[in-house]
Amino acid sequence: MIKAKTGIVMMNLGGPANLDQVEPFLLELFADREIIQLPLQRWLGPFIARRRTPKVKRLYQSIGGGSPILGYTEAQGRGMVERLDRLSPATAPHQFYVAFRYVQPKSEDALRAMHADGVKRAVAFTQYPQFSCSTTGSSLNELWRAASRTGLRDSFEWSVIDRWPVHEGFIAAMTDTVREGLEQFDPADRDRAVILFSAHSLPLDVIDRGDSYPQEVGAGVQRVVERLATPNPYLLAYQSDVGPVRWLGPST
Amino acid sequence: MIKAKTGIVMMNLGGPANLDQVEPFLLELFADREIIQLPLQRWLGPFIARRRTPKVKRLYQSIGGGSPILGYTEAQGRGMVERLDRLSPATAPHQFYVAFRYVQPKSEDALRAMHADGVKRAVAFTQYPQFSCSTTGSSLNELWRAASRTGLRDSFEWSVIDRWPVHEGFIAAMTDTVREGLEQFDPADRDRAVILFSAHSLPLDVIDRGDSYPQEVGAGVQRVVERLATPNPYLLAYQSDVGPVRWLGPST
Repeated sequence: MIKAKTGIVMMNLGGPANLDQVEPFLLELFADREIIQLPLQRWLGPFIARRRTPKVKRLYQSIGGGSPILGYTEAQGRGMVERLDRLSPATAPHQFYVAFRYVQPKSEDALRAMHADGVKRAVAFTQYPQFSCSTTGSSLNELWRAASRTGLRDSFEWSVIDRWPVHEGFIAAMTDTVREGLEQFDPADRDRAVILFSAHSLPLDVIDRGDSYPQEVGAGVQRVVERLATPNPYLLAYQSDVGPVRWLGPST
Repeated sequence: MIKAKTGIVMMNLGGPANLDQVEPFLLELFADREIIQLPLQRWLGPFIARRRTPKVKRLYQSIGGGSPILGYTEAQGRGMVERLDRLSPATAPHQFYVAFRYVQPKSEDALRAMHADGVKRAVAFTQYPQFSCSTTGSSLNELWRAASRTGLRDSFEWSVIDRWPVHEGFIAAMTDTVREGLEQFDPADRDRAVILFSAHSLPLDVIDRGDSYPQEVGAGVQRVVERLATPNPYLLAYQSDVGPVRWLGPST
């Protein structure tokens, strides 16, 4: 019995669901040369991952002991397939499959589940708005590698959604968030508040390979500022650099 | 007699009008710490400027012996004031004044001419589409400094147009240029041509101070690609880095 005709693979980095997953998550992340290239990576990657584990554990502890990303992704997935079934009966039933990069469920899990459900048409749908080799690129590469490993390389007819940096819904949501922030200011001062857009940074080596990420982040900022239509000064900065290589600035 | 009521100061870098102006132009450019900060600048700036002079002279020689930028700016200025006189009779007559940063006419020339013409309202109008501290910022600072030097600090009521990175006319012109380029390809291959957007680079130190230039360049690229509405792959790169500091990449 076919349980789904069209499968949507929701690709993302993922996050540790509980504190025991923090170290394996960081180990996998710092081993991925598509996200960061370190000198002596086989040694330096695990060193940085293990050294950061206690700090990252404390941060996850402070937000309830784990990343909420799986729950959020599943909630979005349920809403998405319900909407797709309504909008496109010809390709229904739709089903979503989560493919995280560094924690379970991974690409293999998504592919095997799609196969078991009888999916014929599959959409690789990145959950990263902007394309980067280190995020969507790494997820797509892993998805194709996993398809080979599982023997499912020819099992699906694929489409790819690899970026949506200025999608109407994304820009509207971002603008609402900024507006909520501005509303916390006294109306007399509100227009003078500086809006700081803080995107995750990338190592300069990734930028110098020609990554489209900063271009697309910049386009999104412009769209949000236009939609907001306030005179506030604003700035795009980059955060969360780590390790001994130079990252894209300005640093948040 | 008032010859002009509203003055529009067209600010730009400028370029040497003839080969004799190449060395003084480069000397001024490499002395400006708002455009580039070099170690031992007082010594290294002139050194780089003088070493580059013969090469830059040859390049200007090959395009007719000088930069066409003054002629182009004056042609645009004439068209602009004609249009402004028609669109806004209340602020007419309008007159344009060129203020280059490193060659004449400079800010002093523009300010003195405006004063002589009886201008009351002035618009500092950058000719750089995207804002950068190193271009528009440097020009604005120089304009205010020149106003002090000439004793004309309180002579005009100022407005500022400091950026227009996604202005409709700018995006339309850029898109037309890309389209003309694509039309040179065989229709069978056209959609596979890679569109390389090449913007002038900036030293990373300028970027790390929080310059808005890359964000605005990225926004313009997105707008051109959307307007073009072709499936061509595209890439934003940065060109013309010079000197011993690291610049924003990827390098064209």
